[in-house]
Amino acid sequence: MITRISFLFIILFITCQISIAQNNIRLRGYGIEIGVLQTGPMNAITDVQGVKVGHTTLIQGDDIRTGVTAILPHSGNLFQEKVPAAIYIGNGFGKLAGYTQVKELGNIETPIVLTNTLSVPRAADALITYTLMQPENENVRSVNPIVGETNDGYLNDIRKRVVTEKDVLNAIAQASDGPVEEGNCGAGTGTSCFGYKGGIGTSSRVIPEKLGGYTVGVLVQTNFGGIFKLNGIPVAKELDNYSRMLKYGSDGSCMIVIITDAPLDSRNLERLAKRAMLGLGRTGGIASNGSGDYVIAISTAEENRIPYESDSPILYQNFLRNNNTTPLFLAAIEATEEAILNSLFAAEDMIGVDNHERKALPKEEILELIENYRMLGH
Amino acid sequence: MITRISFLFIILFITCQISIAQNNIRLRGYGIEIGVLQTGPMNAITDVQGVKVGHTTLIQGDDIRTGVTAILPHSGNLFQEKVPAAIYIGNGFGKLAGYTQVKELGNIETPIVLTNTLSVPRAADALITYTLMQPENENVRSVNPIVGETNDGYLNDIRKRVVTEKDVLNAIAQASDGPVEEGNCGAGTGTSCFGYKGGIGTSSRVIPEKLGGYTVGVLVQTNFGGIFKLNGIPVAKELDNYSRMLKYGSDGSCMIVIITDAPLDSRNLERLAKRAMLGLGRTGGIASNGSGDYVIAISTAEENRIPYESDSPILYQNFLRNNNTTPLFLAAIEATEEAILNSLFAAEDMIGVDNHERKALPKEEILELIENYRMLGH
Amino acid sequence: MITRISFLFIILFITCQISIAQNNIRLRGYGIEIGVLQTGPMNAITDVQGVKVGHTTLIQGDDIRTGVTAILPHSGNLFQEKVPAAIYIGNGFGKLAGYTQVKELGNIETPIVLTNTLSVPRAADALITYTLMQPENENVRSVNPIVGETNDGYLNDIRKRVVTEKDVLNAIAQASDGPVEEGNCGAGTGTSCFGYKGGIGTSSRVIPEKLGGYTVGVLVQTNFGGIFKLNGIPVAKELDNYSRMLKYGSDGSCMIVIITDAPLDSRNLERLAKRAMLGLGRTGGIASNGSGDYVIAISTAEENRIPYESDSPILYQNFLRNNNTTPLFLAAIEATEEAILNSLFAAEDMIGVDNHERKALPKEEILELIENYRMLGH
Amino acid sequence: MITRISFLFIILFITCQISIAQNNIRLRGYGIEIGVLQTGPMNAITDVQGVKVGHTTLIQGDDIRTGVTAILPHSGNLFQEKVPAAIYIGNGFGKLAGYTQVKELGNIETPIVLTNTLSVPRAADALITYTLMQPENENVRSVNPIVGETNDGYLNDIRKRVVTEKDVLNAIAQASDGPVEEGNCGAGTGTSCFGYKGGIGTSSRVIPEKLGGYTVGVLVQTNFGGIFKLNGIPVAKELDNYSRMLKYGSDGSCMIVIITDAPLDSRNLERLAKRAMLGLGRTGGIASNGSGDYVIAISTAEENRIPYESDSPILYQNFLRNNNTTPLFLAAIEATEEAILNSLFAAEDMIGVDNHERKALPKEEILELIENYRMLGH
Repeated sequence: MITRISFLFIILFITCQISIAQNNIRLRGYGIEIGVLQTGPMNAITDVQGVKVGHTTLIQGDDIRTGVTAILPHSGNLFQEKVPAAIYIGNGFGKLAGYTQVKELGNIETPIVLTNTLSVPRAADALITYTLMQPENENVRSVNPIVGETNDGYLNDIRKRVVTEKDVLNAIAQASDGPVEEGNCGAGTGTSCFGYKGGIGTSSRVIPEKLGGYTVGVLVQTNFGGIFKLNGIPVAKELDNYSRMLKYGSDGSCMIVIITDAPLDSRNLERLAKRAMLGLGRTGGIASNGSGDYVIAISTAEENRIPYESDSPILYQNFLRNNNTTPLFLAAIEATEEAILNSLFAAEDMIGVDNHERKALPKEEILELIENYRMLGH
Repeated sequence: MITRISFLFIILFITCQISIAQNNIRLRGYGIEIGVLQTGPMNAITDVQGVKVGHTTLIQGDDIRTGVTAILPHSGNLFQEKVPAAIYIGNGFGKLAGYTQVKELGNIETPIVLTNTLSVPRAADALITYTLMQPENENVRSVNPIVGETNDGYLNDIRKRVVTEKDVLNAIAQASDGPVEEGNCGAGTGTSCFGYKGGIGTSSRVIPEKLGGYTVGVLVQTNFGGIFKLNGIPVAKELDNYSRMLKYGSDGSCMIVIITDAPLDSRNLERLAKRAMLGLGRTGGIASNGSGDYVIAISTAEENRIPYESDSPILYQNFLRNNNTTPLFLAAIEATEEAILNSLFAAEDMIGVDNHERKALPKEEILELIENYRMLGH
Repeated sequence: MITRISFLFIILFITCQISIAQNNIRLRGYGIEIGVLQTGPMNAITDVQGVKVGHTTLIQGDDIRTGVTAILPHSGNLFQEKVPAAIYIGNGFGKLAGYTQVKELGNIETPIVLTNTLSVPRAADALITYTLMQPENENVRSVNPIVGETNDGYLNDIRKRVVTEKDVLNAIAQASDGPVEEGNCGAGTGTSCFGYKGGIGTSSRVIPEKLGGYTVGVLVQTNFGGIFKLNGIPVAKELDNYSRMLKYGSDGSCMIVIITDAPLDSRNLERLAKRAMLGLGRTGGIASNGSGDYVIAISTAEENRIPYESDSPILYQNFLRNNNTTPLFLAAIEATEEAILNSLFAAEDMIGVDNHERKALPKEEILELIENYRMLGH
Repeated sequence: MITRISFLFIILFITCQISIAQNNIRLRGYGIEIGVLQTGPMNAITDVQGVKVGHTTLIQGDDIRTGVTAILPHSGNLFQEKVPAAIYIGNGFGKLAGYTQVKELGNIETPIVLTNTLSVPRAADALITYTLMQPENENVRSVNPIVGETNDGYLNDIRKRVVTEKDVLNAIAQASDGPVEEGNCGAGTGTSCFGYKGGIGTSSRVIPEKLGGYTVGVLVQTNFGGIFKLNGIPVAKELDNYSRMLKYGSDGSCMIVIITDAPLDSRNLERLAKRAMLGLGRTGGIASNGSGDYVIAISTAEENRIPYESDSPILYQNFLRNNNTTPLFLAAIEATEEAILNSLFAAEDMIGVDNHERKALPKEEILELIENYRMLGH
């Protein structure tokens, strides 16, 4: 909750700062709170212990605006110590690699890599290289790489397929915990969202201690359309920019990665993943025909890791009961909504291939709208 | 868009009328418009030509608060002239009858009946009776009845299973086109939503002529929880009633029926159905663990009806291309959101079994909130 | 392996006995062994400890040839102590009740009931009655009954829907461990298979001790078509009765229930269920368009039971690793093939509605064929 | 049907020829007929008009035994003229590329390429190259390549990933109609099946004219285990080689491609694909835990092609009714069984990496078995 005065102050503050460090203020810096649950300390997917994120950003000449984002559920050898996982297909017009094996076996054995549509195979190949070259994996002859994508072809000359193995290995190598860079970076370098510049965004939620105290972290690569709403405020309707949606289509995609330390099995992870689409819906996303909307959900709970090899035929596991999943569902919805908004708030203007341009979200205009919407309520 | 003065007028008007005819004003009567697409003439599922809806409302003594709602995609013999259909499982904690055959064959061959959880079998049995007794069906020996449900056990003594075959046949018999009764009627008689009284709601959208001019109608039976938002306005957050959700859970269910005259095959109907969950998400629904959230989607396009018997092994059909589905997706999202809100606006206070009580949505309070949120914006 | 002499002896023996006790000799009594794994002591689903089976057989007048078969995974209160489960849809032209909730929650909370197509709702209603009337369930207001079916309408006047609640409760009440009655009984009373009289059949496998020593039991209700093979021998081809299949179709259905004491979670139970269709395929089944082929798989491992209510949000479970499931897959295939054959060997001639007749498998002719096929090999 | 004399003759013939041209005689050359339907003229997937197949076989030094097989549903520009398609996951322990988009959109837009497990990404990348370089596709910025695989790592040094873009483009370029090379070629160069040398196999069926006269063609890449049966004859049991299965596991995979000229939509193509697993089951396959068993099904019916761009929002399509699919199901089962057997009959002994050796099927021994099994029957 925020007073009118603090709003004015913020707006003044923004007016001064906006040209200097447009993307230094995240959504919550403007006093906008999504949902009712608390965020983690960094409000990032890296609030889940052990999770690391790394970007390779490729901005070259007039036409290359793309990159790679790698997400590591834990810092060990993921092939030797797999994690329970599921992938939900929000809308499958997309080229995600690795779906069917995750569906069958319920786990993931590589880092997750995000990149552009036409670079999925090369990124997948790089993940195989990454896995084969780890000393403990010297006898491994089968790897299921997980690569998601969105199509940055409006700003990026995507047909050039510039992403290399080195770019992928680099993103993995420099992955770190701590705050996550958002906006025009990594796999979000050249993406668009609601007709504005999209990119990478992240957020997290911590559910109350008495409900388990678990953390749910989300990272998104936003490149989709629809009729934009900011925390329920009909931005697109007010700015009359929704007509574009109907005229030019709203295709594009959103890759969503959810990681939690809650002990969920793959069945409940799939259910968790499904909820992320409700968060996307709250921002005005509609999962249009041409969208590749996928949600990858992972549990890092240490007791449930799945060793590649084991003397025991039995896995001794501790899973949350179905009945206790609801707060996590809410967390996934809220963190997804906020991660998408964070991607839009962090992204900056960009000109790319064929002089195509995407403007950043018009934050000043929008903050004014918000103020009007809130004036008497607070 | 609505001016402050008209709002004040409306509020005055409401203050006077509210005790007399609480549910006569639908959401749009208060100047609240959901989304950007136009509604059909009645803003109801019956805007799709040929669709009929009928209710049997069962309010008996202190403890029975339940009923039956029947939806007929067309007025012919549905078994002899099946319609393309799909069912999407938003969350499957529910007892919907008929799912697997629809998944396999892509069509529906009975009216759709909604009722309470423990009455699904008796309603399904009644649909078999209905089908067998039609003269043209005298040799039929296999019927796939479609029955959805939500659990009205808070207000209704559900263990009594009072719904009879006659109640179901009655709902079908009196089904009609024209405006649809909403709120505490039919299968919505005893339901709850966001801690308020839920019920039956409906809405429709007509997509622009140049995009096909198709109508998408939605009917819902609301009985679910979450953190209520009204057109994006965080009602639950403002009224501080969201804490209930976390404390007592938010289980319950939402049955959603979508009917369109757009020529969609079962694959694209399943995609359409999937979008309804985004509309539910926009109202604050979270598809909690205990939710039975199902979306049934049907196309009534006459050229694509599926005759039970045919001399030709080939169906000559005209289906919309994948590329042209997006506006229908948006329509389904908007109409679902509005149908849910309409159910809440139409429902009235109810006391039921064990003196349990559900209050109707506090419309005055909420309209005040809305006014505040909008004051300067308009 | 069997010598020519023993075969001749068997045939002599059969010739004498066949009119007296046609169905007393099971497949293995003729020296025919399906697959390579050992059977359990009774070669029945009841070899899995705690499993009980009960039949209600309804043969009335000239036209009623139907019944109910109930399978109880354990003898406790199934609602209070649910079991991990999955259902695989081989072909979904069928009316199975309860699928979606099992898919979502991964467990089953009632006995499994099999009956005829048009009696599914009444059987489901009876399972609700059964559950509500158990004293510990006095507050239960939501039950997911599991009812499978095949269409016995060729021999049974199915439109009469004679199965009553009492018939279902009776099948449950008299369920017992020990040998399982096969052939023209329970839900198999009026069914047909490969143009012969079908019915109930059962079989089991015990995997080697070093692979876990688990038991896999299967029970089938056979009512399907295709081109019959007996342990690989092309019976239909030899007897020239396959032309019927192409001329009149091969529709019908097969309900398959698998129960194992191996500790499998619902994901691996679904995989196990999927394998049963390979067993059906080995008998010549083709899962025709009109088939309702469903496989229900359940694990009874005590450590993995799911209490309805619990103080702990965590389930401490021991599941078999993916890597160790293969022998169980083989067991499910073999036991399904043999259970189907057992149903055919046990079934006897039957005349039903409209003087329709189904002959039992012509065992003499077939055993002669078998002898010829084996003569020099042994 | 075959007489004893012709069998003896064949065996004599084989004895003479076997060292010269072991793989020149296909299964039917030995008088073994699978199923009851007629084959097409070549008994190959290329019996479906317009279908082409091409191989790149890579045998290098002591350690490289792999390759690429390309299947083209038609000879036009597949991206501009997509074909209805579906993919069924028999068991998803595999790395198939392209699944989710086919599931969502119901069509395929590239040739199908088969190769080894670790070369999937490079093959997928090559399919992107192939698509982008076609002149009509100069503006294409999104491609969904379809690549299947099995793991030839026992004979091939798979970690070297020797398959190049050129190898894939070459397989496509030299694809031709006419007879299809089987055995140790293309993607089957280094595969194993039932402990013998596996490879590429193909077969087809033509359903009777009065049932539509459609052709169903199947091509397989066999690399799986189980307990081998040849046309129902328990080869593994007789040769006592099934114990290997239990001792060493039976993992591996089978890629199955079905193409038909029957006008099936993607829903019925998925059903058709599902039946192929019954054919695999008939050979003794068990879809073990580690299997990547996928079935890709395509309809080439010209009237149902899906243009990439179109002035009309409507597709005018003619699809077979559900009721008329059963003969096609039988055709898919039979052709799959026979294609697998053909792969085994065509494959020859091979020594590969680390001096690993796979023997070809011991045809003489097996034919003797067959003779014994048949002696008196004919």
